[in-house]
Amino acid sequence: MIKVGIIGATGYAGAELVRIIQGHPEAEVVWYGSRSYVDEKYSSVYGNFFKIVDAKCMDDNMEELADAADVIFTATPQGLCASLVNEEILNKVKVIDLSADFRLKDVSVYEKWYKIEHKAPQFIDEAVYGLCEINRDKIKGTRIVANPGCYTTCSILTAYPLVKEGLIDPDTLIVDALSGVSGAGRGAKVANLYCEVNESSKPYGVTNHRHTPEIEEQLGYAAGKEIVINFTPHLVPMNRGILATEYATLNKKDGKLPTAADVMAAYEKYYKDETFIRLLGDGVYPETRWVEGSNFVDIGFKIDERTGRIVMMGALDNMVKGAAGQAVQNMNILFGLKESMGLESAPCFP
Amino acid sequence: MIKVGIIGATGYAGAELVRIIQGHPEAEVVWYGSRSYVDEKYSSVYGNFFKIVDAKCMDDNMEELADAADVIFTATPQGLCASLVNEEILNKVKVIDLSADFRLKDVSVYEKWYKIEHKAPQFIDEAVYGLCEINRDKIKGTRIVANPGCYTTCSILTAYPLVKEGLIDPDTLIVDALSGVSGAGRGAKVANLYCEVNESSKPYGVTNHRHTPEIEEQLGYAAGKEIVINFTPHLVPMNRGILATEYATLNKKDGKLPTAADVMAAYEKYYKDETFIRLLGDGVYPETRWVEGSNFVDIGFKIDERTGRIVMMGALDNMVKGAAGQAVQNMNILFGLKESMGLESAPCFP
Amino acid sequence: MIKVGIIGATGYAGAELVRIIQGHPEAEVVWYGSRSYVDEKYSSVYGNFFKIVDAKCMDDNMEELADAADVIFTATPQGLCASLVNEEILNKVKVIDLSADFRLKDVSVYEKWYKIEHKAPQFIDEAVYGLCEINRDKIKGTRIVANPGCYTTCSILTAYPLVKEGLIDPDTLIVDALSGVSGAGRGAKVANLYCEVNESSKPYGVTNHRHTPEIEEQLGYAAGKEIVINFTPHLVPMNRGILATEYATLNKKDGKLPTAADVMAAYEKYYKDETFIRLLGDGVYPETRWVEGSNFVDIGFKIDERTGRIVMMGALDNMVKGAAGQAVQNMNILFGLKESMGLESAPCFP
Amino acid sequence: MIKVGIIGATGYAGAELVRIIQGHPEAEVVWYGSRSYVDEKYSSVYGNFFKIVDAKCMDDNMEELADAADVIFTATPQGLCASLVNEEILNKVKVIDLSADFRLKDVSVYEKWYKIEHKAPQFIDEAVYGLCEINRDKIKGTRIVANPGCYTTCSILTAYPLVKEGLIDPDTLIVDALSGVSGAGRGAKVANLYCEVNESSKPYGVTNHRHTPEIEEQLGYAAGKEIVINFTPHLVPMNRGILATEYATLNKKDGKLPTAADVMAAYEKYYKDETFIRLLGDGVYPETRWVEGSNFVDIGFKIDERTGRIVMMGALDNMVKGAAGQAVQNMNILFGLKESMGLESAPCFP
Repeated sequence: MIKVGIIGATGYAGAELVRIIQGHPEAEVVWYGSRSYVDEKYSSVYGNFFKIVDAKCMDDNMEELADAADVIFTATPQGLCASLVNEEILNKVKVIDLSADFRLKDVSVYEKWYKIEHKAPQFIDEAVYGLCEINRDKIKGTRIVANPGCYTTCSILTAYPLVKEGLIDPDTLIVDALSGVSGAGRGAKVANLYCEVNESSKPYGVTNHRHTPEIEEQLGYAAGKEIVINFTPHLVPMNRGILATEYATLNKKDGKLPTAADVMAAYEKYYKDETFIRLLGDGVYPETRWVEGSNFVDIGFKIDERTGRIVMMGALDNMVKGAAGQAVQNMNILFGLKESMGLESAPCFP
Repeated sequence: MIKVGIIGATGYAGAELVRIIQGHPEAEVVWYGSRSYVDEKYSSVYGNFFKIVDAKCMDDNMEELADAADVIFTATPQGLCASLVNEEILNKVKVIDLSADFRLKDVSVYEKWYKIEHKAPQFIDEAVYGLCEINRDKIKGTRIVANPGCYTTCSILTAYPLVKEGLIDPDTLIVDALSGVSGAGRGAKVANLYCEVNESSKPYGVTNHRHTPEIEEQLGYAAGKEIVINFTPHLVPMNRGILATEYATLNKKDGKLPTAADVMAAYEKYYKDETFIRLLGDGVYPETRWVEGSNFVDIGFKIDERTGRIVMMGALDNMVKGAAGQAVQNMNILFGLKESMGLESAPCFP
Repeated sequence: MIKVGIIGATGYAGAELVRIIQGHPEAEVVWYGSRSYVDEKYSSVYGNFFKIVDAKCMDDNMEELADAADVIFTATPQGLCASLVNEEILNKVKVIDLSADFRLKDVSVYEKWYKIEHKAPQFIDEAVYGLCEINRDKIKGTRIVANPGCYTTCSILTAYPLVKEGLIDPDTLIVDALSGVSGAGRGAKVANLYCEVNESSKPYGVTNHRHTPEIEEQLGYAAGKEIVINFTPHLVPMNRGILATEYATLNKKDGKLPTAADVMAAYEKYYKDETFIRLLGDGVYPETRWVEGSNFVDIGFKIDERTGRIVMMGALDNMVKGAAGQAVQNMNILFGLKESMGLESAPCFP
Repeated sequence: MIKVGIIGATGYAGAELVRIIQGHPEAEVVWYGSRSYVDEKYSSVYGNFFKIVDAKCMDDNMEELADAADVIFTATPQGLCASLVNEEILNKVKVIDLSADFRLKDVSVYEKWYKIEHKAPQFIDEAVYGLCEINRDKIKGTRIVANPGCYTTCSILTAYPLVKEGLIDPDTLIVDALSGVSGAGRGAKVANLYCEVNESSKPYGVTNHRHTPEIEEQLGYAAGKEIVINFTPHLVPMNRGILATEYATLNKKDGKLPTAADVMAAYEKYYKDETFIRLLGDGVYPETRWVEGSNFVDIGFKIDERTGRIVMMGALDNMVKGAAGQAVQNMNILFGLKESMGLESAPCFP
């Protein structure tokens, strides 16, 4: 059994890690780290785990955890993982960081968008961006996985094959995305109260949301050049789910737009054998209800011949493929397990 | 592998059966029965099963199904199971009926409350009321399991030990219950449209809801006499969940009310070793969010010394313990499997 | 124009007062009191008032307010109104207190249930319980109106005529009530975050909710004796609305249960001419969607001959008839205006 | 008093007309037309109008209605208004059509996008597109007002000044919009059931939604040329509200992007004195909660200097400014009343 330590176990992503690992045949949580609830029973914080998890919450001591665990998940605010990690720890355990600390390769970009100093820039190069379907091979040997964000996983996977194959002009890319409220975390803020969020939709972080450079960097690798995009997140009243609707101008070939078959071929080239990517095809659109509780990403598209653009759409569960599920998928890769282990349950509807 | 046939596979309870059995190590669905969607791909009706279930929907032919399957679940409107079942079928397969056809022992009570003629009264005696925690032993050998309703499972289990032990006067019992909307099924009715249900709560079936005689019959067995109760269901805006708040006058002993310890002892006498019943204890109240997606029933209580009453509260997921989950639990009992097999996943929150 | 000062204008009840008075032809808000947002524009706290309210928030200075306003609404936590009010202030302005400070006549009951010392017990006798339909005449001349709570307004009005006419045994009364989340206020608490409340229902304050003695006191006046009841509030996922489902044993007369006509006659005796009470009658049940945004209370009932009980049901909008609307109705009574002035808009659906 | 007849009074838009006119000082409904509910009490279909509207539903007889009313609102499916209207009727009453029948000037565009034959093309020229803030003067004298759609009102008003002033390139315009579920109407469809819509978001009508040519035609007038755009609607789980997020490339002037002040000046040029348009300004974004129940459109924007695009965002209540409210605003213009009469209530939150 793989011994799992979680720092930040009482946030929503942490709790989802607990849920997934509780059903994982080869892993068990040995450390429920939570600065806010030290010594309280974990199941008093999350009543769903009553009679399932008997443990109490522990503090954030990563040094001690490194001896107790085989892998540490940090489901914590930006900056914490970077401030705790060091060479000695990395020599003992694998670290899968669900925060943004090791996602961006350029430390100045990190510091600009996140407005904090990076405390462990020496590990940035070594860290692997844990988008499993793209970076599977690099993940295998690494000590630090930078687990991608929820918006980014959805946005990148939805556009990646078309960027990579040159079917679209990446500089025309516009990502308009919707998120359920769990993405905002469990902090007690007026803005996230039930009555503030229910029966409302709103954009936020327009032109400056922190997931923007992450999308740009990864799709830039696919494009083979630096790109800038527009990314607009919206909060909509549901617990879980990310829906990304992406627009780009199609590149003509011999004066002709690519066909739906061309587009589908590009998607299949990269995703045909992927367990967790479901290609809906031309004219079929993803809905967040069909992925809820699962590690799937559903992708559909539609070409608009009138405007010469394509609309690509992707959906995932922000708590699973957008956070804890992908983190476990990364753990499976790191430890040589079947990649889908513990992640095979069907989406739960309604 | 147990071969499972589902009649009514495209209703919500049927779809939940598919989801649970998809994760069951010893069972597989071989027949997705759906009169409305014959020959359509099951995953086109429930997109969550895309790339998981490849089969098409089939008709309701129970004769043919009896040869193809080891167990048939009927997740259909009242009357259908009774109209299809016969001796020959019962000699070939087990039948677990999620409708009310075989729940009430007195056919006249059935016909009065359901307002339809019973087509197979000869099997009523033989059928076992599939409330697993109470009737486990009787279920083992039967050919027909009458799977309890969602309100009834919650209402009965919450009060059963106190009725059985004589701690409360069953004739004072009042059950006030809330239900999520999935309990209303997938029929296209104005009353269940999003805008009609959202942002509203309402009572319905006041004094005459069909689950009333079912609760009375089963708690009557516990009381050792016939009882009548008040049961009031309410529709509240959420997908899943039943919450039952139950009131009864405590029986005094030597002029004194039972204590919380007395009450807890009664609960523990019957439920201490039950996997799926979580006793929250005195002053801790169930919330539907903590059981969502799981087969658990959470039960708490509070004595009111001022009025001499006790308030008992139970919560479950109407799709799981209130329908498909309990049906699979019954299947496990029927086939000698570990009772919790396929039902062990933790509740999913948020 | 009546000059209105609001202390606690940035809570939900305060904001609803602002909304209602903005549409009131004879009143205007002159003081938006909010300790937390002093000097901030009111419309930056509540964006719905952008371009409607230009004022900034002011502090809680009741002395100063007493000179500026004709009536002060205190939409504040328990204890604040009692700590601010004094003889001098009451000689200058009317006070309508939306908190519980002056609702209970017995100060020891207040101190027991609210667990705080009462700072102005000398005004309790003088204060009138502002349940307009019952106490209209007493309200007219008073200096302090104790505006009833949301649960209590609904619970009392639903049962009052039957208690008063002796049709039910008040000691058997059980009130089971549901509330939308706005009743919990705008404080930043984890328990009221969207993801905690959405897709869940829960009881709370079982046997000890603070509205209990308020219901008991008022229905006790109707009964002509002290009574104790059970009251169980539940939180359900909707913004607004209170639904009370109430159970009581009917008193037989000459060995016979009252008929539906008897019950309806009792309701009509008290409410026939009431603008804001809509009697749905026998077998028709209230739904919170039909009262949303309005000052109506909808009341229906059903007799259960099997158990000898009646189920009475009432619904209102907790922000309007349960708080700000009733407060304005009280203001109208105090100032000799038409009682429904500013409160005539139809419920808003969906 | 203006006598109002409504054809389609039992749809959601029809019910909202009833609600608004009920609060209008100079208009009253004299005909509640509803083919489905003829002879049923209107308040039995919409319980919010119990004790407010006493009338019964009547059939769709527009000839008879033309004698009884001063203005007829048709809140009906596409094709119905065109099939009923004729010269004689138009000589007697004003017609405000909430369907699409008279919105598009080119009948072939109508027939292509709506896939039905137009039954009264002779009136298309005469009809005025009832976007009040843009076409106020033309509306005054017309006999037929084509009341704009919900998505279109929001999409056009949000972009209009920037298109008109040449600040953006209209061929780069992408409109990504979210809608509450009431926009889908009250028809009994599985897709609109509570459990299907709740906890999910989905795109639909991608590249071919019928509001597309309407936006293109109107913004084309502003641009002074034909334009094609991308419009993608999404369904999100809330009762009311439209949020449009619109992207366009800014036109440079002397090699420089327009500034936020330039953009704001363009908005103010057209909307400065508009009662129902609230300009939030640079970096402030609309949220549907702030307009709910009102006739307001809230508009904000943000320039992205990195990509050279602007993100424009607008929000309105699809039932009010997106349907019934704008229809009443048009009625006010037609009859020479104050344009905001009956539409002045503040948004209702929460």
